[in-house]
Amino acid sequence: MGADVAGAAKQVRLAARPQGQPRASDFEVVAAPVPVVGDGEILVRTTYLSLDPALRPRMNEVSAYAGAVPLGGVIPSSALGVVLESRSPLHKPGDHVFGMFGWQTHAAVQATEARRIDPHRAPLPKWLSLLGLSSFTAYVGLAELGRPKPGETVVVSAAAGATGAAVGQIARIFGARAVGIAGGAEKCRQVVEAYGFDACVDYKAADFAERLDAACPDGIDVDFENVGGDILRAVYERMNQGGRVIVCGLVSEYSRDGFLPGPSLWPAVYKSLRIEGFRASRYFDRIPEFVDKALEWSQAGLFTHREHVTQGIGNTPQAFVDMLAGRHFGKAMVEV
Amino acid sequence: MGADVAGAAKQVRLAARPQGQPRASDFEVVAAPVPVVGDGEILVRTTYLSLDPALRPRMNEVSAYAGAVPLGGVIPSSALGVVLESRSPLHKPGDHVFGMFGWQTHAAVQATEARRIDPHRAPLPKWLSLLGLSSFTAYVGLAELGRPKPGETVVVSAAAGATGAAVGQIARIFGARAVGIAGGAEKCRQVVEAYGFDACVDYKAADFAERLDAACPDGIDVDFENVGGDILRAVYERMNQGGRVIVCGLVSEYSRDGFLPGPSLWPAVYKSLRIEGFRASRYFDRIPEFVDKALEWSQAGLFTHREHVTQGIGNTPQAFVDMLAGRHFGKAMVEV
Repeated sequence: MGADVAGAAKQVRLAARPQGQPRASDFEVVAAPVPVVGDGEILVRTTYLSLDPALRPRMNEVSAYAGAVPLGGVIPSSALGVVLESRSPLHKPGDHVFGMFGWQTHAAVQATEARRIDPHRAPLPKWLSLLGLSSFTAYVGLAELGRPKPGETVVVSAAAGATGAAVGQIARIFGARAVGIAGGAEKCRQVVEAYGFDACVDYKAADFAERLDAACPDGIDVDFENVGGDILRAVYERMNQGGRVIVCGLVSEYSRDGFLPGPSLWPAVYKSLRIEGFRASRYFDRIPEFVDKALEWSQAGLFTHREHVTQGIGNTPQAFVDMLAGRHFGKAMVEV
Repeated sequence: MGADVAGAAKQVRLAARPQGQPRASDFEVVAAPVPVVGDGEILVRTTYLSLDPALRPRMNEVSAYAGAVPLGGVIPSSALGVVLESRSPLHKPGDHVFGMFGWQTHAAVQATEARRIDPHRAPLPKWLSLLGLSSFTAYVGLAELGRPKPGETVVVSAAAGATGAAVGQIARIFGARAVGIAGGAEKCRQVVEAYGFDACVDYKAADFAERLDAACPDGIDVDFENVGGDILRAVYERMNQGGRVIVCGLVSEYSRDGFLPGPSLWPAVYKSLRIEGFRASRYFDRIPEFVDKALEWSQAGLFTHREHVTQGIGNTPQAFVDMLAGRHFGKAMVEV
């Protein structure tokens, strides 16, 4: 039985530092012992693993974002799971929890690091999509930093992505116009149909700039930036006086050797622009408030989310690669 | 007498668009008629003309900052003056006023556009230096946007300039450490001695980066940016988590063909930086509040300002050229 337990868990580890766009071979899926639970800890069997673009920069040798993943290390992602064993009064076996459990089947974590979720309030995958960190990121980015006023225009890049989809819907709940940017006519169509954006502009179109102008006849008041590079520049040029550029991610720059320079700060002076970067972790104490609101909005038919679910932990590397390449629609996750 | 009056006024006009650093020959000082006063207007004889770096970008063919100065146009600067004639109940002959009177001896302006000043509260030149727009700009930039907390480190570039000098002193009044950046050891010495900065770093020194590190052992919380280019980059690299980059001007970039790209926005994401541009004109309703505070601080020995006064309107072009080249110490102005 010792041998069985020793190989009963599975982990996705970083096998090589990706050069440019990651490949599935940059990861390895290996057997591992089920971890032993210490005092104050819980043992979790994961149910759904989250795939997030922000993991990419952490796979580089040096990452200032949240620390580099060591070679051979488990990818440190958020996930859902069920408590198998508890040495804490906080959670009991059978509880469903959310936490930074990593891309693995089993994790032992401090009980305080896991947040209980209620699968009766919403089906499990929704706790990573509609109610997950990407949606929460959209919420705090808009509510705290972007603060769109009714009638203003909010543009969000990677609009088909998990965060972008939530940004557009929450912008509309706040009374603003929501304009998405996504790659390809079909994806843009889906963004408008599935999430109710006012418009979605295809950045791959030859006349992208003209289309962006047409979608934003009154200019742009809030840019929720997920992509960076040329897309950021196009949006930045169209910012209105007093505009806000909320920088959540720069996914087009993650797989380059270095990050690109930002746009000139001169327009920031003469247009009184605010450019603000953020990480949602700074606001984690507001997650319960967000979950209540999101469920309310969802029940009112104002807030929805699609999921792209890949089956089996062994397919996690390829699913991550596909997500970064923009091949998914909806929040990407793996059902373990 | 008609002939006398026709040539009794003098104006400094833009004779040619400066290529790179302006030269005195880009301006012409010409005789002009004393303007006729319309209903609701006042005729002002100027006493002191302000020289400001922000005028430079407006001398280009296209300026988004506050409109380009047309070729042959009077340079639209702030100034002090005495009312000669009034067709408004707001001001009477003999009143001292502040307004956008331009580089000229006489100006006819709407009475509502002139603000009365009291030379008994502070000598005239102080209304352009200590109590002028450059100091006010420092005040709103710090009080509204930078918001330094006690013990934080505020860095300001062009520290020997009119705005920079005020930024350092107001930062210290707010309880922060004030570190200036200026060109040359002598200027840095003066910044520390005249204005009480905690340190001032010479950007011309070969070991500028090391000196900046030494002057900011706890990193940088607020950058009050007046210069841009390499100096901005050096400061940006040293920003702390939650830091604020307040962009007031980019004087090192004004005389180039185009503005430089800004720094990468990636550190803004992982350090939660706020980069905010502004123009003080947005806050002009707070000038009276500022004047009261500045006089109070001045009387308490906490806030002072030097002036570099050039005599005679005919010397305005050269004085402006010298100010942009950093040859002055203190607020640059011309006594008409």
